[in-house]
Amino acid sequence: MVVVMQPQATEEHILDVDARLTAVGFRTQVIYGVKRTVVAAVGDRRVIESLGLEALPGVEKVVPIMKPFKLASREVKEENTVIQVKGATIGGKELAVIAGPCAVESREQLIEAAWAAREAGARFLRGGAFKPRTSPYSFQGMEEQGLKLLAEASELTGMVTVSEVIDEESLAMALDYIDILQIGTRNMQNFRLLKAAGKSDKPILLKRGLSATVEEWLMAAEYVMSEGNQNVILCERGIRTFESYTRNTLDLSAVPLVQGLSHLPVVVDPSHATGKRDLVLPMAMAAVAAGASGLLVEMHPDPSRALCDGPQSLSPREFAQLMEKIRPVAAAVGKTL
Amino acid sequence: MVVVMQPQATEEHILDVDARLTAVGFRTQVIYGVKRTVVAAVGDRRVIESLGLEALPGVEKVVPIMKPFKLASREVKEENTVIQVKGATIGGKELAVIAGPCAVESREQLIEAAWAAREAGARFLRGGAFKPRTSPYSFQGMEEQGLKLLAEASELTGMVTVSEVIDEESLAMALDYIDILQIGTRNMQNFRLLKAAGKSDKPILLKRGLSATVEEWLMAAEYVMSEGNQNVILCERGIRTFESYTRNTLDLSAVPLVQGLSHLPVVVDPSHATGKRDLVLPMAMAAVAAGASGLLVEMHPDPSRALCDGPQSLSPREFAQLMEKIRPVAAAVGKTL
Amino acid sequence: MVVVMQPQATEEHILDVDARLTAVGFRTQVIYGVKRTVVAAVGDRRVIESLGLEALPGVEKVVPIMKPFKLASREVKEENTVIQVKGATIGGKELAVIAGPCAVESREQLIEAAWAAREAGARFLRGGAFKPRTSPYSFQGMEEQGLKLLAEASELTGMVTVSEVIDEESLAMALDYIDILQIGTRNMQNFRLLKAAGKSDKPILLKRGLSATVEEWLMAAEYVMSEGNQNVILCERGIRTFESYTRNTLDLSAVPLVQGLSHLPVVVDPSHATGKRDLVLPMAMAAVAAGASGLLVEMHPDPSRALCDGPQSLSPREFAQLMEKIRPVAAAVGKTL
Amino acid sequence: MVVVMQPQATEEHILDVDARLTAVGFRTQVIYGVKRTVVAAVGDRRVIESLGLEALPGVEKVVPIMKPFKLASREVKEENTVIQVKGATIGGKELAVIAGPCAVESREQLIEAAWAAREAGARFLRGGAFKPRTSPYSFQGMEEQGLKLLAEASELTGMVTVSEVIDEESLAMALDYIDILQIGTRNMQNFRLLKAAGKSDKPILLKRGLSATVEEWLMAAEYVMSEGNQNVILCERGIRTFESYTRNTLDLSAVPLVQGLSHLPVVVDPSHATGKRDLVLPMAMAAVAAGASGLLVEMHPDPSRALCDGPQSLSPREFAQLMEKIRPVAAAVGKTL
Repeated sequence: MVVVMQPQATEEHILDVDARLTAVGFRTQVIYGVKRTVVAAVGDRRVIESLGLEALPGVEKVVPIMKPFKLASREVKEENTVIQVKGATIGGKELAVIAGPCAVESREQLIEAAWAAREAGARFLRGGAFKPRTSPYSFQGMEEQGLKLLAEASELTGMVTVSEVIDEESLAMALDYIDILQIGTRNMQNFRLLKAAGKSDKPILLKRGLSATVEEWLMAAEYVMSEGNQNVILCERGIRTFESYTRNTLDLSAVPLVQGLSHLPVVVDPSHATGKRDLVLPMAMAAVAAGASGLLVEMHPDPSRALCDGPQSLSPREFAQLMEKIRPVAAAVGKTL
Repeated sequence: MVVVMQPQATEEHILDVDARLTAVGFRTQVIYGVKRTVVAAVGDRRVIESLGLEALPGVEKVVPIMKPFKLASREVKEENTVIQVKGATIGGKELAVIAGPCAVESREQLIEAAWAAREAGARFLRGGAFKPRTSPYSFQGMEEQGLKLLAEASELTGMVTVSEVIDEESLAMALDYIDILQIGTRNMQNFRLLKAAGKSDKPILLKRGLSATVEEWLMAAEYVMSEGNQNVILCERGIRTFESYTRNTLDLSAVPLVQGLSHLPVVVDPSHATGKRDLVLPMAMAAVAAGASGLLVEMHPDPSRALCDGPQSLSPREFAQLMEKIRPVAAAVGKTL
Repeated sequence: MVVVMQPQATEEHILDVDARLTAVGFRTQVIYGVKRTVVAAVGDRRVIESLGLEALPGVEKVVPIMKPFKLASREVKEENTVIQVKGATIGGKELAVIAGPCAVESREQLIEAAWAAREAGARFLRGGAFKPRTSPYSFQGMEEQGLKLLAEASELTGMVTVSEVIDEESLAMALDYIDILQIGTRNMQNFRLLKAAGKSDKPILLKRGLSATVEEWLMAAEYVMSEGNQNVILCERGIRTFESYTRNTLDLSAVPLVQGLSHLPVVVDPSHATGKRDLVLPMAMAAVAAGASGLLVEMHPDPSRALCDGPQSLSPREFAQLMEKIRPVAAAVGKTL
Repeated sequence: MVVVMQPQATEEHILDVDARLTAVGFRTQVIYGVKRTVVAAVGDRRVIESLGLEALPGVEKVVPIMKPFKLASREVKEENTVIQVKGATIGGKELAVIAGPCAVESREQLIEAAWAAREAGARFLRGGAFKPRTSPYSFQGMEEQGLKLLAEASELTGMVTVSEVIDEESLAMALDYIDILQIGTRNMQNFRLLKAAGKSDKPILLKRGLSATVEEWLMAAEYVMSEGNQNVILCERGIRTFESYTRNTLDLSAVPLVQGLSHLPVVVDPSHATGKRDLVLPMAMAAVAAGASGLLVEMHPDPSRALCDGPQSLSPREFAQLMEKIRPVAAAVGKTL
């Protein structure tokens, strides 16, 4: 970290900063410049905040240098984390494809989707039982009944299930039915929920917040990991920008960026990112080429009857085509489907 | 709403859209253009989504026109909502000033802050007992003990208390101690929490999400109101942009904008918005001039020892100066302090 | 377009709006809703603005529906535009790779870069002679001398040259030396320059503005085309967002999106988008998979001595590896290298 | 500046960085941390870029610390710059109000606007003769004829004129007619134009770019000043964000922020920032309260007939009311009207 002193800072101010830093074990150096003096320090960033340096007289600003995340960092664990669930893997050589409807709507709809996903070659089934909706007047999900249907679909098809939990109560409920627990965009910084997820023994699929920096996203993973659960799957699903043609802006550069900073697997959701069916295929292909460990794709037996996200849901036929199209791209980056 | 058909849409496609809309009570008109046909419809926007129009063959896009919020809308309730708590008001002629530390740290710190706030003329005391922190390694709050200290401070000073709740459990706990419940930026779309707040009988101070549009913000208020609690106070606290000199970008135009769209009071938090002590005063003055119903200001007996947000916290002396400075601005817009 | 009337709008207000629209040849329909009346109209969006509808009494807002661009639109020209320069093509089956240094620094540096690019399989050479720099104290380019070196490099290697012009003067100068004229991010809405480019007979490579919407970007192309020059190549190079780990956020969804809206070719610049050498390769692969017509890649004989953009420039060896890596991805999307 | 070395950086890498920095006169310190080594250096930031440090082996990143602007900085010139034009001042005790139509449309329209502005108490008249428009099909301005009308209006009313120039040619033309030259949002980084403006002897009103950081904005001012013209007026006019209810998001915190960083005056344009007539007044009042040195307000004799920006233009009556409303706010911050 570097503490930049104000031009008018006194020697006393400088020594006070230096003293506070050395007191907590930082290695410091005071550098007297022509216009300004800076105090450079190397140590555990996690304690910086508690020092209140920026509020001290004579201090202009504090520039952190080291990364704030530890357990999620590749510096702490070099080799990639590969997550195993019921024989399927995420983070390894196999491309993990998670497909299914935005929301579980009925037994028939879900089972049909599950078979279609499996036949096309996907090994993971997604379906929302608890739906965080922008409007209180929208369909909110089948809740426990939806979870039961997912468990049944898994029974029948052998698919690994992924479903969103939205609070400690729904998380506790999902533990009995679901293989991988999803924490959605709007809850990426719901720290209570992250801690509860950290205490569970299920892999956590953590979506990036709508306007979360990569650093905040990794800090959210750190919350889960700091409670003991090391099986976190990061999911890039688009960030909010000024562009309104697409629902969000898919930040694919986050894939190699996070892979450099962290050992955790990163998957991509082209459906929510674009909000447009026509863009799902090209963005899925791009995600695979960028090195993503997997895809999260919305697929519905009849998109025009979907209770949510119909416009971005693929039909079973379109999904099967997507699987065919990404095969050669996966091969080009050394992955299997 | 307007449904724009693709150039190649057939008459059958057009009629299908028209039929689906009239079936749910929309008044429709098909307009045949040279290049394109559009189906215009007027009706309850809340049902649009369930029609899956965008997923229909021949449909290019759906452009909603009416606003999605109802209870929060000024069209439903013309006169301003004025919230009364222990003789203080928010939304009326009186400018509501809420001051106090980011986090409750100790009895001494809180009581000292409460007296300082009161002596300077504030009638509301803020203090966080449950702190959502980006890092799991940061101070997380005193929880129930903090709530008790707030209740005690209120007893002693007669200040109305405001404190953040982060889940249903902390909300239930806060009901016994706190006058106004705050729902923070990160929880603006924590819909479970919003519904629980809607079932309580305490006023809710709802902060705008870091990247929430005004419409999403009002829809969050709609969640609370649709459960029966009409006492919602909206708080603009800065949105996330590319500018990094300030912590966030304070969107003051949201104040008159929301006042036009809704009858709910809007207050402004210049401390979190800027993250810089020097900017708190000018932005507080600007907020009052823009017509805000109140201010939320971080003040700490000793900012350099604050366990959170020291850099943006005012000292008691600085806060007293702020109160003096905003008085004439409040007068200029017909408000009293 | 739809004109939404205020709830209190009078019949007179409504008829005034209707009259103004029909007067300029729009087909209109007035739809009387329960809460509100809207006037829907279909016609040439280009004249809307001149009607001043939003400033009329009784009007709440005007919602445009049709796209504002014409010549750039796929509705006007269905088949892809394929640009031919000295036997090379952009927009067809062949993937166009444009490589070279950020700035032309010397004869030796440029010639070395040109041969390295050609040996690796690229057919286009880029190099800046006029450098728009954020700081007046940074290297501003070799200007005409740089253009001459590009022409010489083209002579020697047979590479097609691409170089940025920053005003009418530099454009006029470049006409004598350069094959494809680039208009940079900061000049995307320099309308004088766009018009001048539209009068030239050289293909124009038009970079997307730092915060330009896809619609504004296509309107900039419309400026060039409306002056007669139909050979516009669009270049996605990243947009500005809150994320600071990367220099910009590469918006790859813009590639298929623009391909749907327009017949113009779209190429991608992963170097400026990311600003980080390690991210150039994965983003180049992703761009090809997304269906881009080509790539713009910064390559320098000795990045650590580059006068600009060293951190994102590939060495000749790294560039050769990139060409090898993208070959199978190009094949997967039916393109040749 | 701080150079953060990679964990695997060798002593040789570290010494190389150190050597390059000391070679150009930086004072350096190598700090060996447990996980990482950093090289801290204090010196002239303007040369950093030319060192190519980030491209060196062993270097993880370079963190600049000092500000890149000099002439615009308050560290170089402490007292506020007060600009005098024809007896009026900008940057002093007097609040500078610049009013007039978006575009000069006719002699009658302009003269009427000029008298209305003067009668309401404004001393500066704005009007566009060269209009940068998003669409090539929109009105592009009266050009030289418009400049002549502005000069005539100034003759008649004694108003100080402000008008936008868009390239070196229009700038040269404007020198004969206009008192203050405006450089618009889209040209904030048109460096050729900035340099030309720096060579003129007229004050330059420099609008902030649509997505320009405060630092980039001040660097643009630095371009003008580095050519000799120290009379730069900065104009905040809203930045681009995800919020679409308003045309842009007015960043009022930029006012006190820039006043802290620079000695140049800052004025605010609430008309372009909001794009909505109803928001102009409250944002004008907020701007004054925030400490702005002046306002730029669009006013048209008949907004519904305006050839551009009608929806955000005030009528003469509305403008007169605005002047009345801001008077007490100006008084509250010690300014006169």
